[in-house]
Amino acid sequence: MAFIQTGIQQPGILELLFYKGPTGKALSDLAQTLLHGPSTLTLGERELIASYVSKLNDCEFCYESHGAAANAHMNDNGQLLRAVISNVDTAPVSEKMKSLLKIAAKVQKSGREMKAEHVQAAKKAGATDEEIHDAVLIAAAFCMYNRYVDGLGTSLPKAKADYVPMGKRIARRGYKYPPLFMRKFVIWMMSKKN
Amino acid sequence: MAFIQTGIQQPGILELLFYKGPTGKALSDLAQTLLHGPSTLTLGERELIASYVSKLNDCEFCYESHGAAANAHMNDNGQLLRAVISNVDTAPVSEKMKSLLKIAAKVQKSGREMKAEHVQAAKKAGATDEEIHDAVLIAAAFCMYNRYVDGLGTSLPKAKADYVPMGKRIARRGYKYPPLFMRKFVIWMMSKKN
Repeated sequence: MAFIQTGIQQPGILELLFYKGPTGKALSDLAQTLLHGPSTLTLGERELIASYVSKLNDCEFCYESHGAAANAHMNDNGQLLRAVISNVDTAPVSEKMKSLLKIAAKVQKSGREMKAEHVQAAKKAGATDEEIHDAVLIAAAFCMYNRYVDGLGTSLPKAKADYVPMGKRIARRGYKYPPLFMRKFVIWMMSKKN
Repeated sequence: MAFIQTGIQQPGILELLFYKGPTGKALSDLAQTLLHGPSTLTLGERELIASYVSKLNDCEFCYESHGAAANAHMNDNGQLLRAVISNVDTAPVSEKMKSLLKIAAKVQKSGREMKAEHVQAAKKAGATDEEIHDAVLIAAAFCMYNRYVDGLGTSLPKAKADYVPMGKRIARRGYKYPPLFMRKFVIWMMSKKN
């Protein structure tokens, strides 16, 4: 249960997305656009940036759920994500991805940390202007989602293993906000289950 | 001009919103929902939280533009905003707003800074669960917008006085994303002007 009374028993951001429809829809649409919309970064690369930034923000729910989505997209068992978290420089990702992950780490600290030289390094490593734009915006967006999830004290799933089907579901369906009747059905199902 | 080549001469976030349509629309829709959508916080109170968090993130464009919007909503000359920035405790705002601004300052640092006791203090000062939700989400969202604006090195308006009509326009029209022909027209107008 979150710090506020929502009446909804769902882990992480799901409790909040279901709590208030208008903001739930706008936040879901943004995630869908950033992580599944038009971009030359792959779906796996985008989820990797999301999970990495969430780890830097110490947001367990977002780190695990978007990590599971990255694993699902890349058909990986989590080794790649762990390598990125451990050391971007030695992780088995492209030079372009290394430069974008470094940009994401700057943005996670503050927009003011970013300098033209970081952008130049990413361009030299093969990133386009739009890819740099997308990496900065994904990193910035997870500085929002992470704060929303932890700032309202949402709960974690019962078991770590629950993230695996969650990641697969995200990879398959994306972040489309369910219509009201579907949200009511899920809330009703959860109340029966508990 | 931003760190990346956008081909658009607009100050602050406007350059980026015009640069990529799908993300521009999703980000505008979120701002419209947060700052003009359903909430029992007034429009002025919400813009005040947005401007305050932007100041804490050292994001000049967002601080000034949302500050100007707050002034326009509250028919204030900026004295109230300056008092809030200087010291929330002594600013002439309600006890409820003080507690929500303190929550916003916690969220600005990290979602992990928020504790149940801050929520309890806000409830004691008269804030509802939904108002606490809205304050946390606005603060979190400006940790995104600020990083987006500064992380991509966008430019400031030519003069500080330009924020005043900008704030009035925001207060009147909100954040609705203009259709493509309108965006093209604005870009064309700016290219003629420069």
